[in-house]
Amino acid sequence: MKQKENILIIGAGLCGSLLALRLAQRGYNVNVYESRPDLRTTDISAGRSINLALSDRGFKALRLANVEDKAREICIPMKGRLMHDTKGNTFASNYSGRDNEYINSISRGDLNGMLLTEADTYDNLTIHFNSECETVDLDTNTVHFKNRNTNEAFNVTADVIFGTDGAGSELRKSYFLQRKFLFSFSQNFLTHGYKELEIPAAKDGSHQISKDYLHIWPRGEYMLIALPNLDGSFTVTLFLSHEEGTYNFKYLDTEDKIKAFFQAQFPDALALIPNIAEEFANNPTGALGTIKCSPWYYKGNTLILGDAAHAVVPFYGQGMNASFEDVAVLDSIIDKHEDDWETIFKTYQSVRKADADAIGELAEENYYEMRDHVANPMFKTKRLLEMQLEKHFPEHYFSKYSMVTFNENIGYHEAMTKGRAQDKAILNMIADNEISITADMTYEQLEKALQKVQEKTNDIIDDDNVAKTMHH
Amino acid sequence: MKQKENILIIGAGLCGSLLALRLAQRGYNVNVYESRPDLRTTDISAGRSINLALSDRGFKALRLANVEDKAREICIPMKGRLMHDTKGNTFASNYSGRDNEYINSISRGDLNGMLLTEADTYDNLTIHFNSECETVDLDTNTVHFKNRNTNEAFNVTADVIFGTDGAGSELRKSYFLQRKFLFSFSQNFLTHGYKELEIPAAKDGSHQISKDYLHIWPRGEYMLIALPNLDGSFTVTLFLSHEEGTYNFKYLDTEDKIKAFFQAQFPDALALIPNIAEEFANNPTGALGTIKCSPWYYKGNTLILGDAAHAVVPFYGQGMNASFEDVAVLDSIIDKHEDDWETIFKTYQSVRKADADAIGELAEENYYEMRDHVANPMFKTKRLLEMQLEKHFPEHYFSKYSMVTFNENIGYHEAMTKGRAQDKAILNMIADNEISITADMTYEQLEKALQKVQEKTNDIIDDDNVAKTMHH
Repeated sequence: MKQKENILIIGAGLCGSLLALRLAQRGYNVNVYESRPDLRTTDISAGRSINLALSDRGFKALRLANVEDKAREICIPMKGRLMHDTKGNTFASNYSGRDNEYINSISRGDLNGMLLTEADTYDNLTIHFNSECETVDLDTNTVHFKNRNTNEAFNVTADVIFGTDGAGSELRKSYFLQRKFLFSFSQNFLTHGYKELEIPAAKDGSHQISKDYLHIWPRGEYMLIALPNLDGSFTVTLFLSHEEGTYNFKYLDTEDKIKAFFQAQFPDALALIPNIAEEFANNPTGALGTIKCSPWYYKGNTLILGDAAHAVVPFYGQGMNASFEDVAVLDSIIDKHEDDWETIFKTYQSVRKADADAIGELAEENYYEMRDHVANPMFKTKRLLEMQLEKHFPEHYFSKYSMVTFNENIGYHEAMTKGRAQDKAILNMIADNEISITADMTYEQLEKALQKVQEKTNDIIDDDNVAKTMHH
Repeated sequence: MKQKENILIIGAGLCGSLLALRLAQRGYNVNVYESRPDLRTTDISAGRSINLALSDRGFKALRLANVEDKAREICIPMKGRLMHDTKGNTFASNYSGRDNEYINSISRGDLNGMLLTEADTYDNLTIHFNSECETVDLDTNTVHFKNRNTNEAFNVTADVIFGTDGAGSELRKSYFLQRKFLFSFSQNFLTHGYKELEIPAAKDGSHQISKDYLHIWPRGEYMLIALPNLDGSFTVTLFLSHEEGTYNFKYLDTEDKIKAFFQAQFPDALALIPNIAEEFANNPTGALGTIKCSPWYYKGNTLILGDAAHAVVPFYGQGMNASFEDVAVLDSIIDKHEDDWETIFKTYQSVRKADADAIGELAEENYYEMRDHVANPMFKTKRLLEMQLEKHFPEHYFSKYSMVTFNENIGYHEAMTKGRAQDKAILNMIADNEISITADMTYEQLEKALQKVQEKTNDIIDDDNVAKTMHH
C-alpha cells in the first residue's frame, strides 16, 4: 500500500490548484501555500490577464480531476477570429475547417475559484492563503514563508515540494541561486509589451460586439485583441513595442496621443472603450517573456510545473493549457511509479521537456502570424487551402494550429515539427506556383493538393532528419 | 577633437587586455581592474584551459592592435586533426583542402602576458591587479571593488565601463539583478563536463606525439583531445558525461576504474600520461556552458564583451577568436560614431548579436560532429568531397568549418546559415544516392558535384526564407 506522503505545493493558481486537487484525489496529504488572499472572497488584481483561452489540452486535464463540466459551464465558445481593419470592416476566420473545433474564453478568477472550491471538499487538502514563499532550502526540503498579514516568518518541511508559483517562481530562483547542480535557464523578453483595457457591457448587459469570436485588430507592428467575458464586457489587450518604432508605450504618454493612435488604427475599438485614457494610465504595461529551464527537479524532493518551469508568451493561447497538461502528464507517470518520486520526476522531465520547449517557441513565432495576418497574402492563401482540406478531409489533414490546439493526443513537439514542415511545404508550393488555390476548389483538386502537401511535408521532414545527424 | 573619456575595464583577460590596448591606442584614458594577480609574475591556475586554438578572426583583431606578429611567434600551427582509434592507429584529416588554412595552438598565459606587456607601453593605460569587482551600480556608473590582498573595499566611477570579466561576469550579474531594463538571459549547460590532463615532454624536451596536429580520440559518448605546448608537453582534455551513460565522471572515482577506462578506450594516450590518477583527482571537473544575453549595454554607460556577453563551449575553437573579433567589430563602429557611446553600443549590438548567437550554436552542435567523426560514415564521405572541392576550387568552395574558421570577412551567422544548408545538401545527396563520392574524382566529376551542391544549397536557403515569412 502506498505511503501517504506529506506534499507541499507553493502557489494556488491554476496549475497549483489542479495539481493539488489531483494529488488529493490520489490520497496524498496535501498542503498548498498561496501568497495572495483567497480570490473568492477578496477582489484582487493579480496583475495578470483577466481571461484566457481554454482548449482541448486543458479540458483533458480538467476531465482527469472530474471538473471538466464545471469549467465548461463558465466558458464562452469562440469559433474563430474576427479581424477588424482600420475602417472598422470585419471578416471572420474560423480556427479549423472542422465544425467542432473552437477555443473558449474563460475568466482566470472564475476558473481558479471553481478549482479552489472543489479542493475544499477534500479533507486531506488544505490551502493556506497569504503565505508568501521567500526561499526553499534544497538541503533540508524546507520552505521559508512569510505571513503577509502578520509579516511573521514560518518554515514548513515536507516530503515532496511542488513549485507552481508562476513565472517568477521562488523555487526556481532557489535552483538558480543555490547552485546545487548545473541549472540551465533562460528568460527571453520580446521587444513588445502589453496593456489591458476594457470594452464594458451594453446597458442591458449584453455584449457590444459578437461574443462568438476572438477579435483581432492586426496591424503588423502592433495588435489589439479582445476576448468576451460572461458579464457582457470584453477584456482588450494592446500589444505594442516598449520603445521601438513610431508608436510605442513610451511615446503614448498623453490622452491626445493615445486617442489619436487609436483613432487612426483602431477606430471601432476606440468607440467602445470609454475609459481609455484612465485605463492606459492606471493599468500596468506588462512584459512578454518566455522562460525555459532544466532540470525542473531536485532529487526526489522538489519539482516545478506550469509557468514556473516554462512560462510562454500568450500568442498561442496555450499557457494555461500547457500548465494543465503538465498535471495530466505527471499524473500518468505517477500511475506507473507511484511513490518513487525521483523516478517520477526524471521520467516526467524526459517526457515533457521537448513539448514545453516547443510551445514556448510556437507561442513566440505565432505573434508574427497573428499581427501580420492581414498584411501577408501568402498566409491568407495558405489558410484558404488548409480550411478546405480540413473540411473535406477531416480525418487526414490537420493544420499546425489544429494540431497544437485541438489534438491533445499529439505532443507539442510533434505538432511543431510536423506543422512547420507542412507550412513550409504549402508556402513554397505557393511561392513556386506549384499549386493554384481558390475558394471553390473541387474535391478532385483538393485530393490532389492534399497528396502533394503530404508528399512535400514528408520530404522536408526526411531531409531535416538526414541533416540532423550533423548535430544530433 | 575627441574627448579623452575615462574608461574603466573590468577584467584583464584576453578580451579585456586587447580592448584596453586598442582603446589606449585611440587615446582614451584607460584603467583596467583585474581580480587575479599579474600572471606574468605569479603562477596562477585560472581554472581555465591552458591552451587555445587561435585562427583568422583572432589574428585580424590582433593585427588591428599591431600585435599579430608577436602572437604568431608563440603559435604552434596545427594543420589538421589526427584521429586515434582504440587500437592506437591514427589517421590525419586536414582542416581544409587549401594548404594555407590551419589553426594554431597557443598558451592562454603566454598570449595574455604578451598583451599585458604591450599594454604597459602606454602611459594612458593602467592595469590594477588583485582588484575584484563585487558589483556595478548602474545608476551612478560606479564599480565596487575589493582589493584581494588587503580585503579593502574601494569604488571607482568612470565615464564608460566595459565588462570583459568572463563567463561569470559581475557586470552581467548587475544587469540581471538590478532589473533596470528587461534583460534576456540564458545559460545552457551540456550534460558533459571536461577534465584537463597532461602528456609531458620527452626527456629531450621534444613532443612525444606529432605537434603538427590537434589530436582527437573520438568515441561517440566521450572524447579525448590534445593540443601541443611550446615546452614539448600536450594539454589533454577529456570530455565526458557528468552522470549519464556507462562511463561518466561520477563513476570514475578510483585509480583502477580510470585506468581500465583509458586502457580500453585510449590506450595510446594512457601510455603517455604518467600522472593520470593524480591529475584526475586534483584537477577540477569543468562545466561546459553557453551564455547568451541581451541587451549587452546600459545606455551609453556600460557594455559587456567576450565571454561575459556570449560564453561558448570549446568545440569550434572559437571562444577566444570571437572575443577578439568583438574588439575589432566595436573598433570599426567607434570609427564612425566616436564618443557617442550610446550609438556605438546600440550599433554594436545590432551588428554583432546574430553572430554571437551563431557561434554559440555552432560550438554546441560541433561537439556531436567531433565525437562522432569516426563512427558516422556519412561525415567521412562528406568530408572527402569537401576536401577535394576546396582543393580544386579554392576560390569557390568553402566548407562550414572553413567559413567559420578561416574566413574572417564572413560573419558567423552567415557562415552558419550557408554552412548548414551546404551540409544538408551534401548529406541528402549522399543519402539519396544522387552522387558518387570517391577519393580520386576527376576534375569534371568534381565540377559537376560543385554545381549540384551549389544549386541544392541555394534551393534549401530559398525554401527556408519562404518558410521564415511565417515566423519573421
